Amino acid sequence: MAKEVTSREDNYSQWYNNLVVKADLAENSAVRGCMVIKPYGYSIWEKMQAVLDKMFKDTGHSNAYFPLFIPKSFFSREASHVDGFAKECAVVTHYRLKNDPDGDGIIVDESAKLEEELIVRPTSETIIWNSYKNWIQSYRDLPLLINQWANVVRWEMRTRLFLRTTEFLWQEGHTAHSTRQEAEAETMQMVNVYADFAQNWLALPVHIGAKTESERFAGALETYAIEALMQDGKALQAGTSHFLGQNFAKAFDVKFTNRDGKLDYVWATSWGVSTRLMGALIMAHSDDYGLVLPPKLAPIQVVIVPVYKTQEEQDNVAQAAEGLRKELLAKGISVKFDNRDTHKPGWKFAEYELKGVPVRVAIGPKDLAKGTVEIARRDVPGKPGKKFVAREDAIAFIENLLAEIQVGLYERALKFRAENTHKIDSYDEFKEIIKTKGGFILAHWDGTPETEEKIKHETKATIRCIPFDAPEEDGKCMYTGKPSKRRVLFAKAY
Amino acid sequence: MAKEVTSREDNYSQWYNNLVVKADLAENSAVRGCMVIKPYGYSIWEKMQAVLDKMFKDTGHSNAYFPLFIPKSFFSREASHVDGFAKECAVVTHYRLKNDPDGDGIIVDESAKLEEELIVRPTSETIIWNSYKNWIQSYRDLPLLINQWANVVRWEMRTRLFLRTTEFLWQEGHTAHSTRQEAEAETMQMVNVYADFAQNWLALPVHIGAKTESERFAGALETYAIEALMQDGKALQAGTSHFLGQNFAKAFDVKFTNRDGKLDYVWATSWGVSTRLMGALIMAHSDDYGLVLPPKLAPIQVVIVPVYKTQEEQDNVAQAAEGLRKELLAKGISVKFDNRDTHKPGWKFAEYELKGVPVRVAIGPKDLAKGTVEIARRDVPGKPGKKFVAREDAIAFIENLLAEIQVGLYERALKFRAENTHKIDSYDEFKEIIKTKGGFILAHWDGTPETEEKIKHETKATIRCIPFDAPEEDGKCMYTGKPSKRRVLFAKAY
Repeated sequence: MAKEVTSREDNYSQWYNNLVVKADLAENSAVRGCMVIKPYGYSIWEKMQAVLDKMFKDTGHSNAYFPLFIPKSFFSREASHVDGFAKECAVVTHYRLKNDPDGDGIIVDESAKLEEELIVRPTSETIIWNSYKNWIQSYRDLPLLINQWANVVRWEMRTRLFLRTTEFLWQEGHTAHSTRQEAEAETMQMVNVYADFAQNWLALPVHIGAKTESERFAGALETYAIEALMQDGKALQAGTSHFLGQNFAKAFDVKFTNRDGKLDYVWATSWGVSTRLMGALIMAHSDDYGLVLPPKLAPIQVVIVPVYKTQEEQDNVAQAAEGLRKELLAKGISVKFDNRDTHKPGWKFAEYELKGVPVRVAIGPKDLAKGTVEIARRDVPGKPGKKFVAREDAIAFIENLLAEIQVGLYERALKFRAENTHKIDSYDEFKEIIKTKGGFILAHWDGTPETEEKIKHETKATIRCIPFDAPEEDGKCMYTGKPSKRRVLFAKAY
Repeated sequence: MAKEVTSREDNYSQWYNNLVVKADLAENSAVRGCMVIKPYGYSIWEKMQAVLDKMFKDTGHSNAYFPLFIPKSFFSREASHVDGFAKECAVVTHYRLKNDPDGDGIIVDESAKLEEELIVRPTSETIIWNSYKNWIQSYRDLPLLINQWANVVRWEMRTRLFLRTTEFLWQEGHTAHSTRQEAEAETMQMVNVYADFAQNWLALPVHIGAKTESERFAGALETYAIEALMQDGKALQAGTSHFLGQNFAKAFDVKFTNRDGKLDYVWATSWGVSTRLMGALIMAHSDDYGLVLPPKLAPIQVVIVPVYKTQEEQDNVAQAAEGLRKELLAKGISVKFDNRDTHKPGWKFAEYELKGVPVRVAIGPKDLAKGTVEIARRDVPGKPGKKFVAREDAIAFIENLLAEIQVGLYERALKFRAENTHKIDSYDEFKEIIKTKGGFILAHWDGTPETEEKIKHETKATIRCIPFDAPEEDGKCMYTGKPSKRRVLFAKAY
């Protein structure tokens, strides 16, 4: 199995695509740029959704659902918003097909042309703020804390499974507040929720920070993001939270009576993560044998593979495996006993390695005789990750091992990030590192979009964020020599 | 509050719309025919989803996700399918907007015209079977048991919140089997899952049966449905399960090698329920005071309303309420303590009545003195539904009451259905009942689409289904007098 996966060193990009397809996560569809998320991939997404959904509800948010379509005119209301999205919109112009009078196919019925075209939502600020207008009259109606799980469409020219697709699944939070402070606090809270999720569930260390003006969401005053480092030294933006100020409230005329009885525009935030997180998860931990999944998000945490030759051996092993399965299940561990007689153990080992199942248990006649089971951890491939454990210790061992793998993956990713983060003060060195090693670079920048643009043009590296935890220090912009107060985070990015 | 709701007798249709809007379930959006599902409505839908999703998984299905868009040519592949859906399709023709050179708005960029138009999915058989083609080679790849939670679009001319909207949310199961028998059994299993859900969760009795040819899904050999009776005597189709034979396998050339090594086309089913279930839920049990929700699907099962005048009273009552809340929560009951000081108890009573909270507990100083609480059941409005219960018995009483309400709603609906089901043998009587009383009519029919069509044309009543449990009996078609073997179920329908 694993032989079908290109190695990371040979071709990282192909390794990624191989993994997604061979591990049965997703595939390209007949519709350009749109993917099919297959059951195994979708079950990981469902786990992510469940965790995030609980986090959103625990912070006071409710789910709702707004229309897929947005009237074209809504788009123009917020000027920078339309600039940001107009060039990548799927446009619905007709509402009926008919039989082609000249042939046997079907054609668009020109008599069913819409008076105003509808845009398939690339994001929902406009349609949502048009609704909020009717929901908000007074400060008593605020805050409004709403999230939506939905599909969105952005007509991307170059697409890659999970990382950049024309249609993708996501959640978009849209909140309305009576004060600027409260909206800013919400923006910050939600980027921290994302960071918490990335670190404690995806086992992925992230930098949290503010985007520069040129990288902000179209219509936002501030965009905060979490940025992670992939194994090829490129950064991946894994979630964003936007402080929208009063821009959308003004565009859609959403005013409220404040505590002093005066009318004011409402303050807004929006925030989202998408199926792109699947790409981050895959790239962060996996190896040349296949997927490596953090136990907390693995649809199957433990797989039990029976080893036998005779029918009697099979029966005895199956009985032992079934007992183990039930004990693990009782501990809340998701476990699969693969008792298929159509495949050999070796084939199954490779299969679950490819699919990233964190812990594999093998039970054979020798184990039964010795009172042991063989336990292999996916994050340490081959012999070093295998251990024979006494049957009576197996449950506790596996419980510990799952926790250890979860933490271990995070620490490994953190170590990798530390090794691939460079503090650089000269532009020559910057260019050299970007060209040869990649990774994160912490460097001084003069704060102007012009310098940012020149660096991007010359190196393809962008400012990923201005990290919240970057210490104040006096420095000089590596490009212009102008003064700078703190280092910002550069990288080439997905 | 409830005064804003039109009574059922005055105008049933307006009562329904009032309820949906006033109880904050949904509203019309700026996009024709598309609704906004508001947080309270969506939280009921989430409960439905969770229950159904578990039922699907318990019967071996996995979730996946397929593209929103379907290439126009896919539609033409299955002849009856395209006939069924072509007239109500949203069509994407362009993928970019641009600034209008002659004005300040944005217009469709004519240079970004798609070579082949894309249809926003009205249902996903075609795009899914196009994928299945690559997933299925041998009988070992079967059965394929997949479900998708998604939004779909059908360009309806006359829309009503939840009941018929241009965009709606649903789940669509799409399964592939190696034998006809297995696919037929799956079709039957899933309509039974829907009936189970309707009866045990929605508290809604349903008839399960087969659709006549003219009412079948476009492309199906058999459509099974569950049909419920609403309080105005109209039927509502609440879920369908289709046996698709080999139609889609042939249209998309999906063949497999069977156990004998021979190539054969794959057998298919599809089945779905949608946010229409919300409409059924609302109409089935609610009254002129507002929503009545079955406890198993109520987002808030118990609300505690404090009654007080002085600050001291408020403190004491709050303490008692908080204790009760925690005890109920520990029992797994979802409970809200509405301690807002901005609204009077009477206002809150009306509010929760409108929103259909099954059980309301009121606690005041007198209750504290007497060691009681006042418990009101929503399904029996006013005084008859109220009771003072000793505090120490309250938890057990409420637990029982919730179960009693769930069963009681079902029995009430069953009784209503029995009272509004008529066995009719003459067409004159049939017309009279349809005109005056409505309800279900069991009558003999000669089995021809022509007769069915004439009855429909003359009375607007349709054959809802041929119930599986209709006993065999010799009879004569009420319209033509031709022989009939069993009665079928007629009604005017939503």
